[in-house]
This record gives sequence, C-alpha cells and structure tokens, in this order.
Amino acid sequence: MVETVSIADIEKAAARLEGVSIRTPLLQNVELDQAVGGKVLIKPECLQVTGSFKIRGAYNRLSQLTDEQASNGVVAWSSGNHAQGVAAAGAMLGIQTTIVMPEDAPRAKLENTKRLGGEVVTYDRYTGDREVIAKQIAAERSAELVPSYDHPHIIAGQGTVGLELAADAIDMGLPPDQVLIPCGGGGLSSGSALALKSRLPNVDIYAVEPEDFDDTARSFAANKRVRIDDTARSICDALQTPMPGELTFEINERLLSGVLTVSDAEVRAAIRFAFKNLKLVVEPGGAVALAAILSGKLETRGLTTAIVLSGGNIDVDLFAEIQAEPN
Amino acid sequence: MVETVSIADIEKAAARLEGVSIRTPLLQNVELDQAVGGKVLIKPECLQVTGSFKIRGAYNRLSQLTDEQASNGVVAWSSGNHAQGVAAAGAMLGIQTTIVMPEDAPRAKLENTKRLGGEVVTYDRYTGDREVIAKQIAAERSAELVPSYDHPHIIAGQGTVGLELAADAIDMGLPPDQVLIPCGGGGLSSGSALALKSRLPNVDIYAVEPEDFDDTARSFAANKRVRIDDTARSICDALQTPMPGELTFEINERLLSGVLTVSDAEVRAAIRFAFKNLKLVVEPGGAVALAAILSGKLETRGLTTAIVLSGGNIDVDLFAEIQAEPN
Repeated sequence: MVETVSIADIEKAAARLEGVSIRTPLLQNVELDQAVGGKVLIKPECLQVTGSFKIRGAYNRLSQLTDEQASNGVVAWSSGNHAQGVAAAGAMLGIQTTIVMPEDAPRAKLENTKRLGGEVVTYDRYTGDREVIAKQIAAERSAELVPSYDHPHIIAGQGTVGLELAADAIDMGLPPDQVLIPCGGGGLSSGSALALKSRLPNVDIYAVEPEDFDDTARSFAANKRVRIDDTARSICDALQTPMPGELTFEINERLLSGVLTVSDAEVRAAIRFAFKNLKLVVEPGGAVALAAILSGKLETRGLTTAIVLSGGNIDVDLFAEIQAEPN
Repeated sequence: MVETVSIADIEKAAARLEGVSIRTPLLQNVELDQAVGGKVLIKPECLQVTGSFKIRGAYNRLSQLTDEQASNGVVAWSSGNHAQGVAAAGAMLGIQTTIVMPEDAPRAKLENTKRLGGEVVTYDRYTGDREVIAKQIAAERSAELVPSYDHPHIIAGQGTVGLELAADAIDMGLPPDQVLIPCGGGGLSSGSALALKSRLPNVDIYAVEPEDFDDTARSFAANKRVRIDDTARSICDALQTPMPGELTFEINERLLSGVLTVSDAEVRAAIRFAFKNLKLVVEPGGAVALAAILSGKLETRGLTTAIVLSGGNIDVDLFAEIQAEPN
C-alpha cells in the first residue's frame, strides 16, 4: 500500500518552511524568451538556502520527527544537495545528522555539508552501496533514515516549489502552458506536479533527465519501475539515481505528460547560457530543464514555459572549464 | 540653475518602465547574513534586462523624446552598461542609437551593444575624450545626446531601483537601516536616494566607489565636485568616471550619509563570494557594495543592510581568473 501525498500536505509543508526556506522569485529573461520563441518563467532554486531546493523536503521531514527520533539523530545518503539540506535542517532543529556521500561528490558539496554540521561518511559511487552503508549506521544508532526522495514528507516539502511557482505565475498573469522539472529520484517533480495540477489543472508537466540516467523515461515506457545498468555516467552528479522511487513514480506516472532527456553537451551549453544571459550559477543537474528548452526538446514557440533551475552547487574548476568551451 | 528630480518623476518613470524593465527581486542569503553578522537584503540588478540597471534610465530618457528628436536618433557614451541600456531602449522604441565606447570595454558589453542594434564607435579610454567624440557625432546628425548619469530623466529612471527596494523591504517587514549603492557618475545612487528617503526617511545611504575612482568621496570631503587625475585605474570598468555629475552630486551631497571605497582585491573577493554563496554572476563595478560589507567598511552587526548589485556583465576569462584565486 503506497502512502499518498495530498495538496494539504504540501500547504502544511509551506507553512512549516516559512522563515526557513526562501520563497525564490519567478524570473524572466529577454534573451531566453528570444532563444526559445516564447515566454519562459524561471524558478531559480539555485538561490535557495544551501544552493538547492533540497532544504524544503529535508526540513519538512526533520521537523516532523518525534522528540525521541530527533534525539537519536538522522542518517541520509546523498550526492550532495540533499546532504546539505539535511545538515542545514538538522542545524536549525538541533538534530545530529550523518550523511553518506560519494567520495567523488563535488568538493563544494562535501565541504558545505561539513560546514553545516553534518557528519560525512564517504563511499565509492561505483562500487559501494550507499543505501546499505546508511542503513547499517542508522541501525547501530537507532537513528531515523531521511530518504532523499521516496518519502511523503520529502515529496510534500519539494512540492512547495510547484506551489510557489503556480501562485507567482498566476499573480503575474502568466499561467504556464508547460512546466519542466529536473528529475533524479523524482521527489521534486512528483511534489511539484501535485501542487501545479491542483492550481493549474490543464498544465503539462515534464520531468527532465540526463540521457544516461533516463530511468524515469524508461519506466514510463515500460509502465513499471525500471533500473538502469550501473555503467551509466553523467555530468549531472545530482541526478544519478538508478531507479525512480515507488511513491514518486506512482505520482509522476499519473500526473506527468512525459519525460525528456538531455545530453551532457546540452547541459554544458545551458550552464554557459545561464552565466552569459541569466547571470545565474547553475549546476549540471540544475540545468537540465533549461537545456531541454534551449535544445528544442519540445515546442516552446508562442507558449509560456516554466522551468525549475534546481541547484547551483558546482565546483569552480568545472564551471570555468565549461565557460571556456566554444558555444 | 540645477534642474531637480522629484519623487513624482521617479514614480512616473516606474510607470513607463512597466513591461520594459524587470522588477528585480529582493533576495536574502544565509551565508551573507552570517558573514556580516546582520540581515542583508540583496537587490540583484545583474538579473535586469541587459544585465544591469541602466535600461531603467535609458528607457525613461528615450521614451520622453519628441517625435522629431526620436527620428534623428541618439548618441551616448558609455563603458558598456549604459551602452546596452541605450541600445535596448532604442530597439524597443524604434530609435537609432550610436554609442561611443572604450576599445578595451569588456567584449561581452561591446558585442551585446551591437547585437541590440547599437552602432558602436570605439575610442582609447586613456587618450581619447569620449564626450568630445559623442558631441561631434551628435552635432553632425542633429542627434540628441543621452548622458549616462547627469540628466533628470536618467536619474529618475535609475531611482526606480530605490523605489522597488524600499517597497519590497517594507512588504517583507525588513526596512533597512542602511543601503549601499555602487557609484560611478552617481545616477543610480542619487535617484535611488531620492526614492529611498521618500519611503524611509531615516535610512542611511552610502555610495560605494573603487579606491582609485573615489571622485565622489573626494568631492564630499571638499564640499565641491573634484576631478581625479587620469592615471587612476580600477577593475571596475563600469565605475570609471573621473568626476561626479552636477545634478547627481547635488542630490548625493544632500541625501547620502557618506561614501565608502573598496580595493580591487576586495571586489575580486566579493565576486568569488557571489559565485560560491549567492549563485549570482556579478561584474566588478556591480560588486562594490557587497565588497564593502564583506570587508567591514561599516558596521553591519545587528543591522539590516540593503545592497545593490548593479550589474553582471563580466567577460568569462576575467570571471574564471577571479574564481581561480585563493580566498
């Protein structure tokens, strides 16, 4: 029996997040509108506390722990953005946090997680099993696990992105025809889809994945959750989940109009576009929705398209390398 | 007799700019608050149309030309941001624009001005006199000059930055104790000071200049407009004006609490901070107010300080070079 997430859960999460997460603005950019031949609304979660949307779900989960659960601390696994979100939420709530992270995670993500007070345990992304390591630590300490996407509280928290996006777009008199949302495990896309569909029932919502981590696209095609093989590689360190979540997939399958995929080269071009024209620092995983519209993965001409830039935690070396490439 | 600018002029400019300029958001950032020990409100004009606040004044001026003036085109001189603002406003209004720019202006600024339809005439920043060149072209064509700061319509347009800042800060329940504004010729600081003081009479407003282009600071000390010598150099290409404007100085002298200066090294550190923590791309001249609070040029502990990030048009080579430097 799959637990459900309701719009009321997302509204309650929004209330919990007041004064914790930032209500990121909804931006517009002339160059981007010209590039895609339509109007684009940009939700820049790179400007969010900890540099990604992840604080929303993490805080929504941690703030609902019982006192006893809270006193035992929590354990999470994450490539870096959920790590920072959990560490920051733990610091705010006085809950000890331990996060299992790949040893090759971006330096900035590792350092920030530690700076925020998280205890970091590293593993090898391609040979270790982070879930096994995290569960072992949690069992030893009777600590609660904080999954990075497949939990109703996480989904409801990430859904506040869609809630804000819908409200601001309606206020601006620009309800979007379609919304594109980066997708790893599917927490952001499923939560936001619930919120968006409640406010804009006719909106088309697309998840966007890296070409080689197209587990949600393949799962859509197969009508069941599919695991991709472990030789997959992508520049999008934040979106390297091998299989959709159970809860997230059920919601995404029900509400999304489709799944788009983008190549590493398209992501790199999007990061350059964001630097040059948007003046925003966007990380690879955060740039996939922008990459999708810039590379024409769906019709944008004459339409209003909203995109989520889900994070901005990129190491300076990679950023400089990408900016130096020809357009 | 000096023409005055009133708050009504700024409100009218705001009405003209609806649908033209972006109402940039007022952002907050946890790392920045921690770094300065107080609350900081960030007005990111790097997200503005053309990547700086300059579209505001340029459009406000060009939209008030008579039909005859408009038909003869306009001439401006600018290191790059006013150039783009004038070219963009001209394109919107169907007015031919010619802009005299230093040949060593950032490539991005030169290219964007041309892309926006501006005719670019270059000169040597250190030997040529851009004002003489611009006036000669204007005389030949009976074209109107569009000064970059010392004109009531320009000041009123830039003042909309202060108007938005005050309104949003009040809405957020965070009226600032002090506001720091980048200062070249003083158009942005004087216009914004007029608007801010009308909404928040007790606010302290500071102009911020590059150390070597401290003409407004020196003019404050001398109680009259002072010209700095032409050996001055600064990384802030947008703030290299040798002397305050007549109109702008009269307003600034009356309304500002003081003038702060920052070094190139402090500006470079601020650009790194903006990349790493704010996820914003800020150009040197746009980063001086951030540099001032990060380097402790005035008390921020326990206070609410608003800063304007006035532009984000920086070439990728310089940006990468700055990011590669140790903190």
